[in-house]
Amino acid sequence: MSRNILPRPVQRLIDEFARLPGIGPKSASRLTFYLLRGTDNLALDLANALQELKENTRFCSVCFNITEEDPCLICSDEARDASLLCVVEEPLDVVAIERSRAFNGRYHVLHGAISPVEGIGPEDLKIGELVQRVQQGTFKEIILATNPTLEGESTALYLQRRLMNMPVKLTRLARGLPVGGDLEYTDEITLGRAVEGRQEL
Amino acid sequence: MSRNILPRPVQRLIDEFARLPGIGPKSASRLTFYLLRGTDNLALDLANALQELKENTRFCSVCFNITEEDPCLICSDEARDASLLCVVEEPLDVVAIERSRAFNGRYHVLHGAISPVEGIGPEDLKIGELVQRVQQGTFKEIILATNPTLEGESTALYLQRRLMNMPVKLTRLARGLPVGGDLEYTDEITLGRAVEGRQEL
Repeated sequence: MSRNILPRPVQRLIDEFARLPGIGPKSASRLTFYLLRGTDNLALDLANALQELKENTRFCSVCFNITEEDPCLICSDEARDASLLCVVEEPLDVVAIERSRAFNGRYHVLHGAISPVEGIGPEDLKIGELVQRVQQGTFKEIILATNPTLEGESTALYLQRRLMNMPVKLTRLARGLPVGGDLEYTDEITLGRAVEGRQEL
Repeated sequence: MSRNILPRPVQRLIDEFARLPGIGPKSASRLTFYLLRGTDNLALDLANALQELKENTRFCSVCFNITEEDPCLICSDEARDASLLCVVEEPLDVVAIERSRAFNGRYHVLHGAISPVEGIGPEDLKIGELVQRVQQGTFKEIILATNPTLEGESTALYLQRRLMNMPVKLTRLARGLPVGGDLEYTDEITLGRAVEGRQEL
């Protein structure tokens, strides 16, 4: 009954919003009614942006980051260090590392991490392509910048095994206290890593 | 710099998502990258649903609820009590009351509440239309079901003054403890209302 009283297009948009991660049925209807109420063109602007998203973006054939042009702006930027490769799980990780301004090499996006629970194996990720790139021999150091999670660690371990016989240095991002964090509220694993990785002043 | 590394269509969708209420820049980029990763047609389904939303819905010319047909299914349902009118702020309130299955009359949607802070006066709401409907004389009781907020109470008070000389009974939804609520954790205003409105067993 509660479904029937909503016009079909309204219910349909609520259902579509509810398919997105982190948006439950309540948020989905709130968003939908917000768009209905809006006098501006927000709904249509959003619709156009969604259509354009897949039409005008692709994966870079070199690093598999999301891009409008292929190869992407980072891969084709000769000013960037071609001897340094940073391997990440997702395109958003590239954004995060770029934002830090601490890295000026190239990237390789795996598009996920190894996760037996979710049925994701090495063959589902861009690992073969990574090994090929490394074999071409321009890289001196590979930073395995997968997430500090179970899946990310497993993936880094797997990559370490696959790449260990090649003439490259393998590194991992430092683990420790987050800047601005509070020792008292830091979880014991992070704190343990911070102690292990302590640096001389 | 962080903006430039994102392809334009990706940044555009992030910006559009971030215009929605309750979605910050972080959630907006998470949603966008979720849609990019998806192999299904979620982005296009969502785009189509958004386009259809305004094309195929309108406001009922009688009650101003959202509808595909005009008048809406509730207004044209002869089985519903035509002597009972429930005045609400938003279409979502109609959904909520219908879900309760406690009401079988007609509705009137104001599309907001009086709010001097936000510059919303009586003339911005469907109040003139409400007075006209009440003047036509089919209603015996008007339930002023605006929200139990400052704006909702002001609106109910305003409506009471506008309608008090007409031959209709004006009522307001009962205030009290929410079902399943806990006395200990109920705020003092709600508890005060619950005491004032206590009922004999």
